[in-house]
Amino acid sequence: MREHGEQGRVFLVGAGPGDPELLMLKALRLLRQADVVVYDRLVSAAVLDLVPEGVSRISVGKAAGHHSLPQDQINELLVRLVRGGRCVVRLKGGDPFVFGRGSEEALRLKKAGIPFEVVPGITAATARSTYAGVPLTHRGVSRGVRLVTGHLREDQEIELDWRALSDPEATLVIYMGLSNLGILRERLIGAGLDPDIPAMAVQNGTLPQQRKLRGTLRNLPERVADAGMGAPLLIIVGRTVALADELDWFQTEEFPQEERHVAAVCLPRT
Amino acid sequence: MREHGEQGRVFLVGAGPGDPELLMLKALRLLRQADVVVYDRLVSAAVLDLVPEGVSRISVGKAAGHHSLPQDQINELLVRLVRGGRCVVRLKGGDPFVFGRGSEEALRLKKAGIPFEVVPGITAATARSTYAGVPLTHRGVSRGVRLVTGHLREDQEIELDWRALSDPEATLVIYMGLSNLGILRERLIGAGLDPDIPAMAVQNGTLPQQRKLRGTLRNLPERVADAGMGAPLLIIVGRTVALADELDWFQTEEFPQEERHVAAVCLPRT
Repeated sequence: MREHGEQGRVFLVGAGPGDPELLMLKALRLLRQADVVVYDRLVSAAVLDLVPEGVSRISVGKAAGHHSLPQDQINELLVRLVRGGRCVVRLKGGDPFVFGRGSEEALRLKKAGIPFEVVPGITAATARSTYAGVPLTHRGVSRGVRLVTGHLREDQEIELDWRALSDPEATLVIYMGLSNLGILRERLIGAGLDPDIPAMAVQNGTLPQQRKLRGTLRNLPERVADAGMGAPLLIIVGRTVALADELDWFQTEEFPQEERHVAAVCLPRT
Repeated sequence: MREHGEQGRVFLVGAGPGDPELLMLKALRLLRQADVVVYDRLVSAAVLDLVPEGVSRISVGKAAGHHSLPQDQINELLVRLVRGGRCVVRLKGGDPFVFGRGSEEALRLKKAGIPFEVVPGITAATARSTYAGVPLTHRGVSRGVRLVTGHLREDQEIELDWRALSDPEATLVIYMGLSNLGILRERLIGAGLDPDIPAMAVQNGTLPQQRKLRGTLRNLPERVADAGMGAPLLIIVGRTVALADELDWFQTEEFPQEERHVAAVCLPRT
């Protein structure tokens, strides 16, 4: 705690996809300087292990479908915690400004006159596709990327610009697509996307327990269900998915269980 | 150098947008273990400063339009360098798998039987928009993201799925859009995008010399030209750009010169 009356500050920090080595240098520095860390359910245990002993930790969300603090209560919590000059790190899975609702928290802080900074984190679309061997762009194969979320508020029908998402020369990445995977397939094919375009599902991407399943847009929903894959699940649709046959450096078997290839490191120079 | 006959390895590493604190922990570890670092023109000087003394550095690209090594020669250089068991870090601006051509280098290594790993970097679309105060998604404003490049090979006309890029409920981020900015505007408006939709240009995003300019799709090309903005330039088009009026935490003036707000840090706890 700092001297009474000193201005506090909130850092909205992206925790990335799970592997703690995929954290930014700036994020690690801030975790070490924080008075309190407020984190949600998408932050991996391995990242939380980087928070020093003696720093307060506050969880604001549990597994999907379970109890978590409503967004407005999280906003108010941040405003309250920063009082007394505290350094608050708000640690969010992935990137705060990509399907992270970080901008809602930032607007609330701005309104309260509280200084804040934002530290980007590596978002699932780039990190998890990389660890699945899928480049998002590749000359002559994909010239663009589309990011969408397949999860909407529970009372709403999923409604996206399907035609815009059906460009076969771009890679489509769907966050939180598990529960609506069948609808997503139907709408994309209805908008003209080739049912045989390669598609992949990646569960727990970048973590040791990563699982991935390669199929096509047509068969992915049933294959994912048959395999019993669960959240967090990233869906990648596009021709670049086929490149994973060559480029998978992290995990060469679809469901390797305990025999997964462990990435080697260069030895220290001698 | 390691013992003769030992297998070398190439790490394709994303250097991020420029600020060295926006490097991954894993990237820093690998730079410290490398025998040789091969880097291109988009890697910032501040990131290169993290390469230890005594590690070989090879530049394969200079400023845009100037001499740089053709892609196939870069590929062959990596294959040659790794021989003798060397640990090669191929350091690329941004993310290797997002408009980075990292997958072309990886395919060549695969073909040569050389082990490789890929370390994602934070791509300009997320880092530079964050440092410009623009969230890529925001509830009720933007429900998706589109990433494209505005630069094609010199003999080609820029040809994108303009209709797919004209969704007003997604944020469009254009890499390397400087030289084709007028054409991009014309095509997007022709495809139905509102000319008055907010748009922003960010030069040298995340660096101390960051400059940004807020306008609309209609007036951005002329305003960018009048301001003499140059590469590297990121273009953001979408309603979330307007949120930067509230959320700009890094740089509150458009062209602040030397008086830019310097982000503060929390002091060490006492």
